[in-house]
Amino acid sequence: MRLGPDAARARFAEARVATLATVGVDGVPHLVPVTFAVAGDAIFFVVDHKPKTTTDLRRLRNIAANPAVSFLVDVYDEDWTALWWARADGVARALGDPADRVEPVRALQSKYAQYRERPPTGVVVATTVARWSGWAATDPTR
Amino acid sequence: MRLGPDAARARFAEARVATLATVGVDGVPHLVPVTFAVAGDAIFFVVDHKPKTTTDLRRLRNIAANPAVSFLVDVYDEDWTALWWARADGVARALGDPADRVEPVRALQSKYAQYRERPPTGVVVATTVARWSGWAATDPTR
Repeated sequence: MRLGPDAARARFAEARVATLATVGVDGVPHLVPVTFAVAGDAIFFVVDHKPKTTTDLRRLRNIAANPAVSFLVDVYDEDWTALWWARADGVARALGDPADRVEPVRALQSKYAQYRERPPTGVVVATTVARWSGWAATDPTR
Repeated sequence: MRLGPDAARARFAEARVATLATVGVDGVPHLVPVTFAVAGDAIFFVVDHKPKTTTDLRRLRNIAANPAVSFLVDVYDEDWTALWWARADGVARALGDPADRVEPVRALQSKYAQYRERPPTGVVVATTVARWSGWAATDPTR
């Protein structure tokens, strides 16, 4: 059954990782996992300090050309009656002003001890979510 | 560090769920989790019998208009040195001929007891993978 926007957002916000989709100018989708924090209808993530190749920056090139993005949180279970997922569709932008980093970095550090131990230094991307949605195989408890 | 194509495919194939990205004619990405089977450089999934709303068929509309798809398998761990992901980028098509269903359904039933207990009856989508890639935070053991 479908999850309402509030339930979908609540489940999404508590997850530790999401899959981010961006789309290239050629119409080809690009996927990468991201750690993230939710504040209201915003999702923040950072291109962080974990080892990366330069091709991982494709997500930033894509967002600059086409800001439409989607994030999916998915919980798999061998009991398929326990499956659920939550999705956030919105518009992303990379934050160029250092002052704009403060709130996102604080939100990420509040959620992840890993970011408290080692503050993220990369580009911050903020997404304004236009639609929270989701699905659960069985009656959601929240 | 990057995973080579063989390592990425091996890790991908063993996973139980992947995130599928399709792209609408409007350039907007669409994400949904899928159970799947890998055979060589093909990935099969079925729009299966779990409860769905009609809007879930957006993935099929998108593929018909733009067959470029991407699948991501992601393993999260609070120990970020254990993180890894594997990705498959390719071209998808819905199989209209019932005869074409046989191999994909067999592959899915071989992988999932759930599909043996309840054979999938929905539309089969086959993706020809052009690129297997992946990343692991630490030296892969395979």
